[in-house]
Amino acid sequence: MANRKHNFSAGPCTLPLEVLEEAQAEFVDYQGAGMSLIEMSHRGKHFDQVATEAMALSMEVFEVPEDFSVLFLQGGAILQFSMIPMNLLHEGHKGGYVNSGTWARGAIQDAREYGEIYTAWDGASCDYTRMPSTRELAIQDNTRYLHITTNETIGGIRFPKWPDVEIPLVADMSSEYMARPLPWEKFDLVYGGAQKNLGPAGMAVVFVRKSILEKTNRKIGRYLRYDIHESKASMFNTPPVFPIYMFGKVLKWMKKHGGLAGMERRAADKAGTLYGAIDSSNGYYRCPVEVACRSHMNVVFRLPTEELEQAFLEEAAEAGFMNLKGHRSVGGCRASIYNALPGASVKALAEFMADFQHRNR
Amino acid sequence: MANRKHNFSAGPCTLPLEVLEEAQAEFVDYQGAGMSLIEMSHRGKHFDQVATEAMALSMEVFEVPEDFSVLFLQGGAILQFSMIPMNLLHEGHKGGYVNSGTWARGAIQDAREYGEIYTAWDGASCDYTRMPSTRELAIQDNTRYLHITTNETIGGIRFPKWPDVEIPLVADMSSEYMARPLPWEKFDLVYGGAQKNLGPAGMAVVFVRKSILEKTNRKIGRYLRYDIHESKASMFNTPPVFPIYMFGKVLKWMKKHGGLAGMERRAADKAGTLYGAIDSSNGYYRCPVEVACRSHMNVVFRLPTEELEQAFLEEAAEAGFMNLKGHRSVGGCRASIYNALPGASVKALAEFMADFQHRNR
Repeated sequence: MANRKHNFSAGPCTLPLEVLEEAQAEFVDYQGAGMSLIEMSHRGKHFDQVATEAMALSMEVFEVPEDFSVLFLQGGAILQFSMIPMNLLHEGHKGGYVNSGTWARGAIQDAREYGEIYTAWDGASCDYTRMPSTRELAIQDNTRYLHITTNETIGGIRFPKWPDVEIPLVADMSSEYMARPLPWEKFDLVYGGAQKNLGPAGMAVVFVRKSILEKTNRKIGRYLRYDIHESKASMFNTPPVFPIYMFGKVLKWMKKHGGLAGMERRAADKAGTLYGAIDSSNGYYRCPVEVACRSHMNVVFRLPTEELEQAFLEEAAEAGFMNLKGHRSVGGCRASIYNALPGASVKALAEFMADFQHRNR
Repeated sequence: MANRKHNFSAGPCTLPLEVLEEAQAEFVDYQGAGMSLIEMSHRGKHFDQVATEAMALSMEVFEVPEDFSVLFLQGGAILQFSMIPMNLLHEGHKGGYVNSGTWARGAIQDAREYGEIYTAWDGASCDYTRMPSTRELAIQDNTRYLHITTNETIGGIRFPKWPDVEIPLVADMSSEYMARPLPWEKFDLVYGGAQKNLGPAGMAVVFVRKSILEKTNRKIGRYLRYDIHESKASMFNTPPVFPIYMFGKVLKWMKKHGGLAGMERRAADKAGTLYGAIDSSNGYYRCPVEVACRSHMNVVFRLPTEELEQAFLEEAAEAGFMNLKGHRSVGGCRASIYNALPGASVKALAEFMADFQHRNR
């Protein structure tokens, strides 16, 4: 594909080109079956194979131990904000939440409808420029879980080290899903939307510790129950067929490129290139995030003035660097450099940044 | 496409071939933008145009009055089973439900978690072979809505006439969505999964009367609130991008083929062909459904013995007639003949049925 742009969208975002081309080739007639995969019964042999393989590969690539199950759900990470407290919190339980920014606040807001929720650390005081250390966390008695957002897409921060607490962690990993290893023993539940590192929009991938399913709440509608989805291998109702299919292809691509270790290395390289460009600009480009907490997925930066930012975004788009505008709630610039974004795109952006600075002192 | 099968799947199911081919052609590089539509920000200009057009066309094709809004949600019709009572039922309200079969029972089961629910008519006594007439409905005082399943996919029955009641109707139309006109004035909410008549799996399309949104429940998680989705034009969170895109194309195809009137006529023709084949078989093929309530979407039928049914299904598949097996809960055969299934496929099946009968007396 000749015309392919450098796509720094925060999500939905760049997918591996070979995955797109493969899906295109078999889109109308899937493997000679005489119909498209999206026209097939989700209980037929073709889709069953697709779903089974995506489940197995997600466990393998993300190095998930056997005491977890993977669920393919709908409603994005945001429906999980409700489902987690609905399922996990019982009478007398509390949910502890780290308020690390926009997405964490959303999780807290929804959880308050379903249980006693408190903020174990509040990033408001530092304007969400860093994550807390373990000793800053104020964990209360009877806390069922500590909820963290491992990477804040808008703020551009991530946990450099995992909180070392006695209670189980529950993590929203949407914007760095399958981009770094997890210490699974610390977690009861890990979730995220697919539309950044995993495939197209329309699916949340949830890993849940099987042993907690015996105690989840049953007095809720069936779509909202983890135990039901788990017992039916995510086929309780018609699943999001196309995102599952594409996720399977993305997982194969990840595996071919070194799995989780490969993704982590790629991310560190790309992030290193961009933060290097920022740090070597003599303050022309500024990243507001504390160095230790800089995201490897969403690189936020400012220019000396808003006028220069506007000019930067316009010239960048003309040069083929798309979707670099920061989130409307914070302004500035943001380069989202998810798994599938080629290193060459990041190198080209770093060069463009140096050139723009040179031309706009 | 030379090898295309006759696909009688109950859903996901046949989509218009021209829609699939169009999507395939632009899959990797959407309108010369240098990226796939599924890689684009859902807030960017390309997808905004896709979503806006799909919304406008769904209102136009389904002849929806302006006092309704259309919502593109995730979680299928089954999440609606929970969201409807969660949002609509307040203290002192009751929800009345028509138990017309498998899908209605699911709606009732989930609703019981969120309010006082009763069965206004129970099809169990007639083994779900028909829908009730209005005078058979036992509506209680303080009923907020009467929930109906306008077409039961498994039982193969539909409402020939709409219930004529004083309270608002709420309808699950999943398996006959946009295949017949609706008297909108009777309804507060109409919903259904997309994966039959509207496009690929992964989306529920919900039409909600705007005036009821002022009184819906706010003490629930944000993803579960109709008022929030409505106020954000279904862009509260990342929507199911690919199903919306495909829905837009299916709507254009519907419009080109006569809109709702065209779809209703096509359905009546196709259903007429198949029921004709059954009724003219001298009892070899039997449809258990009362004639007036026969579905125009899901034609269920039995053969003289289960052995013959097995032979029929096998020979049919060899001849290119796929997915004719009845639902596992009821057995027998079922031909789902949704909007996009060509009339030629139905005619060919009717001929195959006559031929099979001739060879297997």
